[in-house]
Amino acid sequence: MSGQTPSSHPDPGWLFTEFFSFQRAHALKTAVGLELFTHIDDGAVTAPTLAERTGAAERGIRILCDYLTIVGHLTKQDGRYGLTPNSRALLSKRSPVYMGSMGDFLLNEGLLQAFLHLPEAVKQGGAPPDPEGPLAPDHPMWSEFARSMAPLMDFVGERAAAQLTASGPATKVLDIAAGHGMYGINLARRNPQAHVTGLDWATVLAVARENAARFGVGERYHTVPGSAFEAEFGSGYDLVLVPNLCHHFGREANVALFKKIRVALAPGGRIAIVEFVPNDDRVTPPIAAAFSLMMLAGTPEGDAYTFREYQEMLKAAGFRDVRMTPLEELPWKLIVAVS
Amino acid sequence: MSGQTPSSHPDPGWLFTEFFSFQRAHALKTAVGLELFTHIDDGAVTAPTLAERTGAAERGIRILCDYLTIVGHLTKQDGRYGLTPNSRALLSKRSPVYMGSMGDFLLNEGLLQAFLHLPEAVKQGGAPPDPEGPLAPDHPMWSEFARSMAPLMDFVGERAAAQLTASGPATKVLDIAAGHGMYGINLARRNPQAHVTGLDWATVLAVARENAARFGVGERYHTVPGSAFEAEFGSGYDLVLVPNLCHHFGREANVALFKKIRVALAPGGRIAIVEFVPNDDRVTPPIAAAFSLMMLAGTPEGDAYTFREYQEMLKAAGFRDVRMTPLEELPWKLIVAVS
Repeated sequence: MSGQTPSSHPDPGWLFTEFFSFQRAHALKTAVGLELFTHIDDGAVTAPTLAERTGAAERGIRILCDYLTIVGHLTKQDGRYGLTPNSRALLSKRSPVYMGSMGDFLLNEGLLQAFLHLPEAVKQGGAPPDPEGPLAPDHPMWSEFARSMAPLMDFVGERAAAQLTASGPATKVLDIAAGHGMYGINLARRNPQAHVTGLDWATVLAVARENAARFGVGERYHTVPGSAFEAEFGSGYDLVLVPNLCHHFGREANVALFKKIRVALAPGGRIAIVEFVPNDDRVTPPIAAAFSLMMLAGTPEGDAYTFREYQEMLKAAGFRDVRMTPLEELPWKLIVAVS
Repeated sequence: MSGQTPSSHPDPGWLFTEFFSFQRAHALKTAVGLELFTHIDDGAVTAPTLAERTGAAERGIRILCDYLTIVGHLTKQDGRYGLTPNSRALLSKRSPVYMGSMGDFLLNEGLLQAFLHLPEAVKQGGAPPDPEGPLAPDHPMWSEFARSMAPLMDFVGERAAAQLTASGPATKVLDIAAGHGMYGINLARRNPQAHVTGLDWATVLAVARENAARFGVGERYHTVPGSAFEAEFGSGYDLVLVPNLCHHFGREANVALFKKIRVALAPGGRIAIVEFVPNDDRVTPPIAAAFSLMMLAGTPEGDAYTFREYQEMLKAAGFRDVRMTPLEELPWKLIVAVS
């Protein structure tokens, strides 16, 4: 809210805004939970009518909507609230690309707890290993991930599938840490010959199978339950997808995983990684670079790796011809290498 | 990081930035705790040297400093970090107006917990009454407030004292919910005739007395322990200060408090309120208006009241000539009325 000021005029308001920034996330999640953006899209644009639709107190709705206006997610004119282009596109359930459920995963209690321990993670260089944490077998966080991130990941997966299909056919596909399944499912939708095998914890695969059926590719969607590091992959794949997985682990674990993947590929088969990839300066582009902090707080050795680091890890595992392409205007990158 | 985009190009990165905004507050608090800004001011400007000075892991320091650069609190050039005007002025202990300790109060566990229950507060129109919460007698949150907010409140109190002294002398002053004591102490520093009585919980008054002694006005600083609603104020005051208190309560409680204050004032004596005061639109100015959400989440009936509402409450208690003035460029306002 307040900008940078010269040191002759210190601006304590700036510190208030920064230290109170945590409220933005909770207010947005709360508003999505009440479907406020959808109700406004439907024409309920005052605090009294929104209170009636949601069953919440008018005072609570008024203060929440005012706050959302202040931080730029709503407009307010003469007591009437309106949507911004972003909130209309992403947070109203009337939108074909509604993604409001993201907050259920991105603000899950485990991650919030991890940030209470950020000072220790900085001192130790990572979160302490936690046998019951998110990297433990069958951790319930990942079915929450699969459910709440599916709308977003459909959007990203569609763009990744378009690029992968354009650069070569893939009929036998393995999707590692498939989650919601939307990366593999989008490949199957584009290529009627493709068979996709999703690998993830058993509880998570139930969500992927639901999605595969919903998108009409259920008969060509197969599953392998278990850990990416321990499960039997099978062999002869044209393409192995590794979307949003490597950032959880250190360099050695990733190289070991890439070697295991290479063995499962047919000759000339490809590995495709989708990730936040910061530039070598590690401070741009902002969303990708900022993701390192989440990995510092939440994992013992994870990171947002640069393209140079992915090149090194993939080459150490025997891959060649490592290329990176953007996914249109999205903050993720697609990295492809040949076995 | 990402701006508003037309709905034809939805920007999922915007949602990532919003839902991850809670990290900004924790990262800044962590950096202040490690005195990173002070060490950089002292010339330790690389991750290895900062790791050595702080005893933290280089990897942890690197990721934290990169994040702080991304969100605008540091600069980075060729692996060397630098301070911004705001971080140099407010977060380096070399600065005469260092205020880094604010995070210890503004991110206290009680407030963070309150935001986990924001959905319930919106539905009910306020937080449920909590006999052991921040409004309970002698709650430890308020000594934390007194200690961590003193540098900021000295800055605000100095500006309030300048205005109050310019518009009339005050030799017998009552400072209600004195906390750190910096509002009353600044009046005593400006007027060698003034005697100030601080009222707060006994544990909090210990901090105020320490500060009064430190600023050389200890002999003219008196204390009354207890609740603003129950303690015996005494009488004949020229001026009663009520800094940052009214926002915790509903309208009726504030009117009752103002009536009690009026009885304690000498004829023609003044009440002086320091508060975040939003405009009638309740969405400007941003910091003052946004404070309503904190009160919704953290108190049963508190709010950031408009000037019109303060006028009504003060008039209902018998005050006249209600005036509001800014405190230079700060987000607080000074409201003064005559008994």
